[in-house]
Amino acid sequence: MKKLKLGMVGGGQGAFIGGVHRYAARLDNRWELVAGALSSNPERAAASAEELGLERSYASYEEMAVAEAAMEDGIEAVSIVTPNHMHAGPVIAFLNAGIHVICDKPLCATTVEAEEILKAIKSSSAHFILTHNYTGYPLIRQARNIIAIGELGKIRVAQVEYAQDWLTQCIENEGQKQASWRTDPVKSGGGGAIGDIGTHALNLLEFVTGLEAQALSAELHSFGPGRLVDDNAHVQLRLDGGAKGTLWASQIAVGNENGLRLRVYGDRGGLEWSQEDPNKMTVAIHGSSKRILTRAGAGLGSSSSWTRIPPGHPEGYLEGFANIYSDAADLIEGKSDGSLLPGYKEGLRGMSFIQACLKSSRNDGKWEFI
Amino acid sequence: MKKLKLGMVGGGQGAFIGGVHRYAARLDNRWELVAGALSSNPERAAASAEELGLERSYASYEEMAVAEAAMEDGIEAVSIVTPNHMHAGPVIAFLNAGIHVICDKPLCATTVEAEEILKAIKSSSAHFILTHNYTGYPLIRQARNIIAIGELGKIRVAQVEYAQDWLTQCIENEGQKQASWRTDPVKSGGGGAIGDIGTHALNLLEFVTGLEAQALSAELHSFGPGRLVDDNAHVQLRLDGGAKGTLWASQIAVGNENGLRLRVYGDRGGLEWSQEDPNKMTVAIHGSSKRILTRAGAGLGSSSSWTRIPPGHPEGYLEGFANIYSDAADLIEGKSDGSLLPGYKEGLRGMSFIQACLKSSRNDGKWEFI
Amino acid sequence: MKKLKLGMVGGGQGAFIGGVHRYAARLDNRWELVAGALSSNPERAAASAEELGLERSYASYEEMAVAEAAMEDGIEAVSIVTPNHMHAGPVIAFLNAGIHVICDKPLCATTVEAEEILKAIKSSSAHFILTHNYTGYPLIRQARNIIAIGELGKIRVAQVEYAQDWLTQCIENEGQKQASWRTDPVKSGGGGAIGDIGTHALNLLEFVTGLEAQALSAELHSFGPGRLVDDNAHVQLRLDGGAKGTLWASQIAVGNENGLRLRVYGDRGGLEWSQEDPNKMTVAIHGSSKRILTRAGAGLGSSSSWTRIPPGHPEGYLEGFANIYSDAADLIEGKSDGSLLPGYKEGLRGMSFIQACLKSSRNDGKWEFI
Amino acid sequence: MKKLKLGMVGGGQGAFIGGVHRYAARLDNRWELVAGALSSNPERAAASAEELGLERSYASYEEMAVAEAAMEDGIEAVSIVTPNHMHAGPVIAFLNAGIHVICDKPLCATTVEAEEILKAIKSSSAHFILTHNYTGYPLIRQARNIIAIGELGKIRVAQVEYAQDWLTQCIENEGQKQASWRTDPVKSGGGGAIGDIGTHALNLLEFVTGLEAQALSAELHSFGPGRLVDDNAHVQLRLDGGAKGTLWASQIAVGNENGLRLRVYGDRGGLEWSQEDPNKMTVAIHGSSKRILTRAGAGLGSSSSWTRIPPGHPEGYLEGFANIYSDAADLIEGKSDGSLLPGYKEGLRGMSFIQACLKSSRNDGKWEFI
Repeated sequence: MKKLKLGMVGGGQGAFIGGVHRYAARLDNRWELVAGALSSNPERAAASAEELGLERSYASYEEMAVAEAAMEDGIEAVSIVTPNHMHAGPVIAFLNAGIHVICDKPLCATTVEAEEILKAIKSSSAHFILTHNYTGYPLIRQARNIIAIGELGKIRVAQVEYAQDWLTQCIENEGQKQASWRTDPVKSGGGGAIGDIGTHALNLLEFVTGLEAQALSAELHSFGPGRLVDDNAHVQLRLDGGAKGTLWASQIAVGNENGLRLRVYGDRGGLEWSQEDPNKMTVAIHGSSKRILTRAGAGLGSSSSWTRIPPGHPEGYLEGFANIYSDAADLIEGKSDGSLLPGYKEGLRGMSFIQACLKSSRNDGKWEFI
Repeated sequence: MKKLKLGMVGGGQGAFIGGVHRYAARLDNRWELVAGALSSNPERAAASAEELGLERSYASYEEMAVAEAAMEDGIEAVSIVTPNHMHAGPVIAFLNAGIHVICDKPLCATTVEAEEILKAIKSSSAHFILTHNYTGYPLIRQARNIIAIGELGKIRVAQVEYAQDWLTQCIENEGQKQASWRTDPVKSGGGGAIGDIGTHALNLLEFVTGLEAQALSAELHSFGPGRLVDDNAHVQLRLDGGAKGTLWASQIAVGNENGLRLRVYGDRGGLEWSQEDPNKMTVAIHGSSKRILTRAGAGLGSSSSWTRIPPGHPEGYLEGFANIYSDAADLIEGKSDGSLLPGYKEGLRGMSFIQACLKSSRNDGKWEFI
Repeated sequence: MKKLKLGMVGGGQGAFIGGVHRYAARLDNRWELVAGALSSNPERAAASAEELGLERSYASYEEMAVAEAAMEDGIEAVSIVTPNHMHAGPVIAFLNAGIHVICDKPLCATTVEAEEILKAIKSSSAHFILTHNYTGYPLIRQARNIIAIGELGKIRVAQVEYAQDWLTQCIENEGQKQASWRTDPVKSGGGGAIGDIGTHALNLLEFVTGLEAQALSAELHSFGPGRLVDDNAHVQLRLDGGAKGTLWASQIAVGNENGLRLRVYGDRGGLEWSQEDPNKMTVAIHGSSKRILTRAGAGLGSSSSWTRIPPGHPEGYLEGFANIYSDAADLIEGKSDGSLLPGYKEGLRGMSFIQACLKSSRNDGKWEFI
Repeated sequence: MKKLKLGMVGGGQGAFIGGVHRYAARLDNRWELVAGALSSNPERAAASAEELGLERSYASYEEMAVAEAAMEDGIEAVSIVTPNHMHAGPVIAFLNAGIHVICDKPLCATTVEAEEILKAIKSSSAHFILTHNYTGYPLIRQARNIIAIGELGKIRVAQVEYAQDWLTQCIENEGQKQASWRTDPVKSGGGGAIGDIGTHALNLLEFVTGLEAQALSAELHSFGPGRLVDDNAHVQLRLDGGAKGTLWASQIAVGNENGLRLRVYGDRGGLEWSQEDPNKMTVAIHGSSKRILTRAGAGLGSSSSWTRIPPGHPEGYLEGFANIYSDAADLIEGKSDGSLLPGYKEGLRGMSFIQACLKSSRNDGKWEFI
């Protein structure tokens, strides 16, 4: 069993999400990380590469894309894990070099960049995958199936929320690196909570329901004194087919760590799921008692296709994230059509969502199309 | 210990909330139900009174108000438990007769009625109490205290929801009495879920936070085919002091029985409570681990003032409702100032809330002042 | 509707369980408390009676039994809510007087007393009811039905526990009245936790499973320094038909308020219930997903026979206790055969259980028959 | 960063725990699996090795131990993941070859084997590690610390249970491989549930409390018709310092997937943890409200040393298992003293525990020393 060769842009010392991508790529033994441009600072890039034991370290992603494409056994895919405003450059460079791209969300920071990425995708033979990783949770995929086959009937209401509390205080003023770029509108792309976690929430809602949000009305607010981006967002949604939705994204909801929760109600049934307790999901069919589905457990279809261990032995965030990487390997190796993988379309929806939220909120909650 | 004498208007055979009021009045042994006009149908009134063993049964509330006021040992208070559109008449009649009124919510069906009630209150020596009963839950009162003394800091976000599923199907077309009048805009006062349960939700949020909603943006919808009132409402709120809120009321959220839930977040801490599990509440102070407060249990002030049994022996809905009746007895007997009791002001806010929701929803979510 | 006339022995000022019985008797409006010998101290008895507004107060239960039996409209039943070692006297006196007895558990303090009670029962026309109140919870009765109709198959394992923490410290040495008599082997009857709460646990297990414990092996211990009765008991059970069981009773398990929990597993299915969250129960059928049954909610038979309000509005401890009183009223009024009511047999089993535990524990866990 | 070279014995096609070890070894990128004798069937061994892309496949573990020890870059450690009765052979062979051993639990099948393993350990320079993996959960290690520093005071009661339901029916008769060897007393070593999962439970209890069980009284039973080993075990424990304990192991408790739960109560506080929801733990200090500690979250020391991702993003079974492998790497590389790693001593306790349970149960629950 040959492993696919992977490169990485970003993710050097002090970064967070780069490490997560490495765990996810490694878990199922389908990928081997061999090359990287781990930092825009060449010295940190080199030090980070040595720490990780990478075979090949580059001082810039441009150099890396050219060199790897030219090698016989160059990387087959690259993970882009830079801050949002530094996605577009490497994404385009590697696509142009014919190397598959696995990009952290959101897609990029501006709609101009998004269009350039689209052009690159269209002219490239390589795949573009966006790590909306929460769609990798087995029960989320089972939820999607349950709805797709009509168990809940016609969907009426869908609610999603992603609540955190780590920005309750303005730690961006104290040099916290993760907080600093996320609360800088230039680096984040304008949105705060709405971009950082609200896009995940929207993606999850649309993935599971199979419905798209057509329009939204948003109330964004910055509670952190002097903060330039939203840290709390209340959004109402109008979905395909007349369904109604809400989305709440917050980074100041004290007591919430990563409270990503989804609730969907149709005219026959409803389901509820919470990311912090991801191995179970409740499903209610009107007139019957509520059921607790467990990951890989009995009942209503099964989520065992995307799991590694038996029910009752919990899987978590890394396992869900790893499903994205393994699906990507399947796609690249021609073993699947990648239909569950998020990509450009989902990325663009995230971008549109952020812009629509910002516009609606500026206009006193006026409904905006997405 | 002498018991207060109580009358009742409405609540005859086939009614729901009348029985609840009787349980609540009886529990703490402060009240004795002695008279009633239990139905607008005289025969049913008489039969219902006999079933309950009432000493005095009247064919109409008008007659009852006059007669009881004239008696030496007539009732000291009356419970009004008729459908919404039949509140104003008896409320005014008994106030005018100098008899205290304990009225089921909402206040009444129209703003004209509300003004007439106000006039009656102003010219009467009797008290007017509205049974927003969820404020009687001990932990809800403790939550109010926790916030009042600043444990959570300045409130930023407050969210309340009241989700049911009993109107998932259009059972009003099958003769279900409770469903029929609640989905008839004339009898309900125009609102559906928003009036029936949304007003409870708003009241709870305002009671606990001590903040009033200043304006709202609402998206009401009727999912039940042919249904004339809303059965799902998504509402955004702007609260005193810049706090943001949301309110969700639904009667079609499959799997929810009486899912009244409250979450409040300040710049120091947050708390969460659910009516279906009312004997516990979680409180998080930023930077510390979350705590589980229990009814009458240890920690952060105490809710033991309004409880009957030790922690770990659950109290429920009837006990919370009974707190309203016992507080009313205290007020009437001069043992307290009744500052925790909901009354006209809360009722009027409920009316304004319904009207503002209806107007905002008609105007595509335009913000309306309450 | 005429109310039954009730008397009470014990339950004066400073008592706990007497108040609970009064709430329970009052809730459904079937009983009227009219007479009492509320304390063995005549002054306190009188003061307590006045506080409660009792029509007739007696200085002793002996006097009360005689007097009430002689009255035209004397009490029809009496509640015995004295400490354990003072049960037998009044129980026998009222039975001999032909007055129905509703006695708090346990039956009494010694086997000699138990035999005398049995004699009195046999020679009396009156009913004897023992308030093993937890059997009044609607879902507990539904659990009994579920098992009786074979939904779980043949029962293999049944586990019950009742964990508290209020005796973690030796508050009996600080004059806490409830703690003092419960930790005095003379007044409690020898058992500590095993008698006070362990008997409830055994009763619940036997009520729900329909199986009796045939033998037990016990390890009792007193962790409180100087304490003379057990405050923690680990018991293994052998049940009818080869099923195995465990029972844990503790009053020093820090963090447990009234943690009465039951789990039953058969060869087809299992169920779990917790008294602190009594409005739901989980049921698993092997090979299917677990279901959450709610009080009066949909699915697997129904518990709505013994409830007052719709699902989702929680009922609690007092409501469950009230079911015992209302069942007793039904029995006395000839409306039911009282087959669900606990009585002498259950009381004797509790006595035997305590004695067997004490003996087994003294003999290093040797199995004892019950 | 050089990876350690790992071999594996057992874990070929159709096995379960071998795959888990491979995930665990891979997750933190400290190990590289390069060699294996994956099956006692040479053809399956070869096919399995090819499927995994192993560099070196052996037909027997004897051959493998000799060959790898002789190589310049032979494996530094080996994972033994064969059925219980096939542990001793390879363990001894690799220890004798100077290769570190990471062995799945239990230690082996007989006490004779255990003594031989001890001899091998004493005469070898290599480490012996037993994968009692549940001790790798971060909150379990935090629990151990909490108790060690005295937060709960002197421990009084400790209870552990491991409940499953996968052997509710006799699937061993239908050719289910995992069930077949586990219910064969020769291959399992005599114990059923008590050995397969009871040893995990005991280990967890002793690891967290820092107390050893001195004696036990056991009631083992086989509910599966014709089953030769226990499928349900109720055990009472006497622990160091006078603490009392219970242990329940079951594989027929319908509705339990991997219900490993621990509760510990001291004279100051208590804690509770459940493996199926491993990212949180409740801690109660007497007289205060209960707290919810989360993995890597705020409060009472911290579990962040052994985690990979922030609180609120759940980790699971594989991450806990991986902590054992990473600790082993630390030990081998001289970066830690491995004091948290389970080894021979823990394995021997497991063996003694099984034997004591079997003996006690045969003798009607007579207390046996462990």
